[in-house]
Amino acid sequence: MKLVLVRHGESEWNKANLFTGWTDVDLSEKGHQEAIQAGQTLKQEGYDFDVCYTSYLKRAIHTLNHILDEMDRNWLPVYKSWHLNERHYGALQGLNKADTAAKYGEDQVKIWRRSFDVKPPLLEVEDDRNPANQAMYRNVDAKALPLAESLETTIDRVIPYFEANIKKDMEAGKRVLIAAHGNSIRALVKYFEKMDKEAIVGVNIPTGIPLVYEFDEAFQVKDHYYLGDAETIQAKMKAVANQGKAK
Amino acid sequence: MKLVLVRHGESEWNKANLFTGWTDVDLSEKGHQEAIQAGQTLKQEGYDFDVCYTSYLKRAIHTLNHILDEMDRNWLPVYKSWHLNERHYGALQGLNKADTAAKYGEDQVKIWRRSFDVKPPLLEVEDDRNPANQAMYRNVDAKALPLAESLETTIDRVIPYFEANIKKDMEAGKRVLIAAHGNSIRALVKYFEKMDKEAIVGVNIPTGIPLVYEFDEAFQVKDHYYLGDAETIQAKMKAVANQGKAK
Repeated sequence: MKLVLVRHGESEWNKANLFTGWTDVDLSEKGHQEAIQAGQTLKQEGYDFDVCYTSYLKRAIHTLNHILDEMDRNWLPVYKSWHLNERHYGALQGLNKADTAAKYGEDQVKIWRRSFDVKPPLLEVEDDRNPANQAMYRNVDAKALPLAESLETTIDRVIPYFEANIKKDMEAGKRVLIAAHGNSIRALVKYFEKMDKEAIVGVNIPTGIPLVYEFDEAFQVKDHYYLGDAETIQAKMKAVANQGKAK
Repeated sequence: MKLVLVRHGESEWNKANLFTGWTDVDLSEKGHQEAIQAGQTLKQEGYDFDVCYTSYLKRAIHTLNHILDEMDRNWLPVYKSWHLNERHYGALQGLNKADTAAKYGEDQVKIWRRSFDVKPPLLEVEDDRNPANQAMYRNVDAKALPLAESLETTIDRVIPYFEANIKKDMEAGKRVLIAAHGNSIRALVKYFEKMDKEAIVGVNIPTGIPLVYEFDEAFQVKDHYYLGDAETIQAKMKAVANQGKAK
């Protein structure tokens, strides 16, 4: 059993160094190009899929659309779920990462960004950024929606969805592609590799690089690897790790 | 209950005046623009949807993607089915419409294009154009796939799918958008309006113009109308009607 994960390419707010979370910003021009490249790599490497999963957020959906275009697989079924969304960044959403680091200190920003179980400041219930106030989540039970998430609470909504849907498809022999986000992919990586919380906070998922997991019949990881040029992958991991620093 | 149907915009092969059918050609630049315009019209007119249906063919899928982008509704569920594909044009697929008219006569081409129950020449079973030989239909029972279709046999696979899926969603109160093709939309129009076969062959569906049907609780048509500029709609209907003529 193989599973392929792709983190969306650069978004307009990655580029502007803003905390994004569930803000529904689109890919930047570079992000579109990264997604196209991911599709070309998967095609060149001979990958094919039976079913695709993505989040409710357009930067992941557009990444998937580009991949399906490049692979000539537009007709594949695609399931979208808010359970695969990025971690919700609460009241930090829309703030500049470097400004926030200058104001609160790099250490506090690092705690918000890289701790396992500390949530960023919560949104007020009446805030427009509260998902319960947004059209996108009108069919979701408001009690299930967050005002901010830690990596831990992100995991708590990613993994049950994975087990109930994606894992079932894989066990039925389907080849699955997931286009998602830094922290929803980290949730899966921690789960697959049985990492402890110290290990997972040090993992940086590069954007637009297909990450392949191979499993045995007992769903134990046999192997995992990125597809593409090793130097590009290293540079991208480093760029993600450096994002929280003050300028 | 309201239902909105959109025929995909101009494709590369519409532009080249070739018989397309199930050939998976993309939208032309004009076709992309028509789809964007359809999305803007739906947004301006205050439409919203709960679920979308489209075919397996990228010209319809891309039309839907543009509409969802313009309406900021990328997160809506989308179901893709070959049952909503264009009529299969058999061995005519890939031939120039004007050349075919010059060779076989306009009357014969008109019969192939506009009769209710005459199929175009069938594909050979081993032909690459036979859907049973194509990756796109690898999960479909080969016995269900055509070698050519009349409008009558197109209706025979569109309507059962509509009744089993889309009508059920509508009866459950969902607002449905369908992005499809000239003949799969005609199949639905005939069914909704209980047209006879003489009437439906005279109906020309304009490209990229949202067609709204309103139904009462007994699923009887209360009203139907196109959204947008009346002059544009008339010009588009005429252009479709004239496609089969020799140059």
